[in-house]
Amino acid sequence: MFVLVNLKAYPCDPVAVAEAAERVATEHGADVAIAPQAAHIQAVAQSGAETWAQHVSPVGHGSHTGSTLAEAAADAGAVGTLLNHSENRLKLADIDASLDAAERAELSTVVCANNPDQIAAAAALGPDAVAVEPPELIGTGTPVSQADPDIVRDAVAATKRVDPEIEVYCGAGISTGEDIAAAEELGADGVLLASGVAKAADPQAALEALVD
Amino acid sequence: MFVLVNLKAYPCDPVAVAEAAERVATEHGADVAIAPQAAHIQAVAQSGAETWAQHVSPVGHGSHTGSTLAEAAADAGAVGTLLNHSENRLKLADIDASLDAAERAELSTVVCANNPDQIAAAAALGPDAVAVEPPELIGTGTPVSQADPDIVRDAVAATKRVDPEIEVYCGAGISTGEDIAAAEELGADGVLLASGVAKAADPQAALEALVD
Amino acid sequence: MFVLVNLKAYPCDPVAVAEAAERVATEHGADVAIAPQAAHIQAVAQSGAETWAQHVSPVGHGSHTGSTLAEAAADAGAVGTLLNHSENRLKLADIDASLDAAERAELSTVVCANNPDQIAAAAALGPDAVAVEPPELIGTGTPVSQADPDIVRDAVAATKRVDPEIEVYCGAGISTGEDIAAAEELGADGVLLASGVAKAADPQAALEALVD
Amino acid sequence: MFVLVNLKAYPCDPVAVAEAAERVATEHGADVAIAPQAAHIQAVAQSGAETWAQHVSPVGHGSHTGSTLAEAAADAGAVGTLLNHSENRLKLADIDASLDAAERAELSTVVCANNPDQIAAAAALGPDAVAVEPPELIGTGTPVSQADPDIVRDAVAATKRVDPEIEVYCGAGISTGEDIAAAEELGADGVLLASGVAKAADPQAALEALVD
Repeated sequence: MFVLVNLKAYPCDPVAVAEAAERVATEHGADVAIAPQAAHIQAVAQSGAETWAQHVSPVGHGSHTGSTLAEAAADAGAVGTLLNHSENRLKLADIDASLDAAERAELSTVVCANNPDQIAAAAALGPDAVAVEPPELIGTGTPVSQADPDIVRDAVAATKRVDPEIEVYCGAGISTGEDIAAAEELGADGVLLASGVAKAADPQAALEALVD
Repeated sequence: MFVLVNLKAYPCDPVAVAEAAERVATEHGADVAIAPQAAHIQAVAQSGAETWAQHVSPVGHGSHTGSTLAEAAADAGAVGTLLNHSENRLKLADIDASLDAAERAELSTVVCANNPDQIAAAAALGPDAVAVEPPELIGTGTPVSQADPDIVRDAVAATKRVDPEIEVYCGAGISTGEDIAAAEELGADGVLLASGVAKAADPQAALEALVD
Repeated sequence: MFVLVNLKAYPCDPVAVAEAAERVATEHGADVAIAPQAAHIQAVAQSGAETWAQHVSPVGHGSHTGSTLAEAAADAGAVGTLLNHSENRLKLADIDASLDAAERAELSTVVCANNPDQIAAAAALGPDAVAVEPPELIGTGTPVSQADPDIVRDAVAATKRVDPEIEVYCGAGISTGEDIAAAEELGADGVLLASGVAKAADPQAALEALVD
Repeated sequence: MFVLVNLKAYPCDPVAVAEAAERVATEHGADVAIAPQAAHIQAVAQSGAETWAQHVSPVGHGSHTGSTLAEAAADAGAVGTLLNHSENRLKLADIDASLDAAERAELSTVVCANNPDQIAAAAALGPDAVAVEPPELIGTGTPVSQADPDIVRDAVAATKRVDPEIEVYCGAGISTGEDIAAAEELGADGVLLASGVAKAADPQAALEALVD
């Protein structure tokens, strides 16, 4: 199971979380990555943790002031990117163009969406993975795998109908190892986490509780 | 005169440009800053050059995936930020909120706009500086100070009517020391540059030609 | 005092509200206008009521599918338009361009904003009027004139400093004649209303209570 | 073959075009519809022509100033709506929500997209039809069926893999009966037209040339 910790714009120390993730990844053989603010990618990547961008813009090199260039994120150390997170919804055409941008920069891609229909739509654009995160469960502490197991099952089925190679992650409310086990049982290949780790008093303990 | 070099999403080496800027700033006593991609802020700031963000989001700490948090930009070494560049136009309410965000993170602020009316509007929101850049002249090589001197004069007058403390920069087509001198004569306190330096074969020579 | 009733996307009968407004305007000599959905402008205007658009796009004639063309709104009978309502915030450059579009179509203009700084910014763009509506009071039933009289006073002062000819309206929570009188005393030239009339069981009675 | 004439924000007389469409539909047994500005829906529908909206917002009844409410469009006489036109690209989540809104208002739906991948994505959201319109051919006079027949064939194949019930239209550069015949041969069920009819000196003749 892939564990992607989204630091959003939280007031955490991104390097401390990254170092905790790196230790947990090494000690437990877990597949853990950290998605910090773009301005923190370099510092997080230098910690040795697998580093992701939270977003890349649907553009290539050129006159795009204020964009988040995929090549710049890769340059700073990112190896993947989230796209279309519920806090950063994109136009359909821009998800397509951001996927192209990420591919040019050799970043792995996860396209988020709300429900199985949108997951199928996202899958049709050819990302490496999709992630279903019911917005109403984000930040609630109630795991999606328990509150709405069907949405995970349906997202997996919808994705595999489009392309069995695309991985499926789920998010919202995941905070324990049991939540991850439940997600895996529903067919998910990974999970998205955020506040449960980023806001934890002890991020390493929080991550260990997950991957054990 | 303040010289802000906007690297946009250009395929330049941001650290090489920053080092050139830092040498020119030191050797010529010039006031030069570099605005790279957010993911390059840390590397650029580590070169010793004055580093600016190209944009910050109208948010504070919180659940804002994919945002450009002012605090993260500051953390990585930025001391100022552009806002509302013509390639990244913002909602009026978001310029206001991004100015608040920048102030919380102790970033200097320059709000860009197209014409004197919009410059007056931008000034009313209380930035440290405004910048007038007629979009039709961006990237043309024809300096605004020559193609449309009245827009610079009118922008200065409009700004000073709102608040004489707010500095006024101009941009578009600036590439020689004469362009800068002309801008200064029109009342500008600084200039915005981009391709003229970022795409130059020898950025240091390009900057020296400007500040001499 | 000008009374502008914004029907938003409420499930009301726009013609019934317009006819009530027209009767109240005629019988009480009141200055009342109705802002329906664009698709309802023609039917509302045919009722004889003064009809406003809720928004016009920052474009002129051309290839702009899905835009709200100022000329089409005027054609259908609108004589004015709201711009930058808190439910439809616009880019600074687009407020400027929408004002140009409205002027070409001979529509009166009211630019909404949250606070006195943004009101000054809006005024700098040269609309016929501005409207201050603290978003946190919209739909509360607590009139802005009572909850935050200073914001109205400051908005009036900020506007008059820019151009004494620009009218100032206020909105949020206005539902009684006393609220309107209080707004007038604070210097406002008009008020924006919405649910208090649009969702009233008897819109005519609701309007009469206001203008008496 | 369904022929949808998108009037965009063109300076045409929408009722004159609608009357021409209505005559051609009646005399030639053709399936022709007109998509005017929202503010013109009522006048166009009253001409007897089949009337479509150019866009509906991803909202239901409520506090949505400046939205294009599907129910208001239907009320005024629209029976269908375009969504995600290349001049009005929408967020993936908003296409989904606008489809829900259109369904509640009993409007037929056509979701536009640039390329077969995006067409498959659009189809996954369950519209009545999709339309492929390569942006680079819009307004060129070169029919997509001739310039890029594969994009039409691939769009048809991609759609039918998702759901054989979903119709496929194509657009860009269609202006003659031969273009329509070619589109039909490639598997399209309809075409989108715009300037060829809307800007024609004689819209009826332009439409007759198409449907003959």
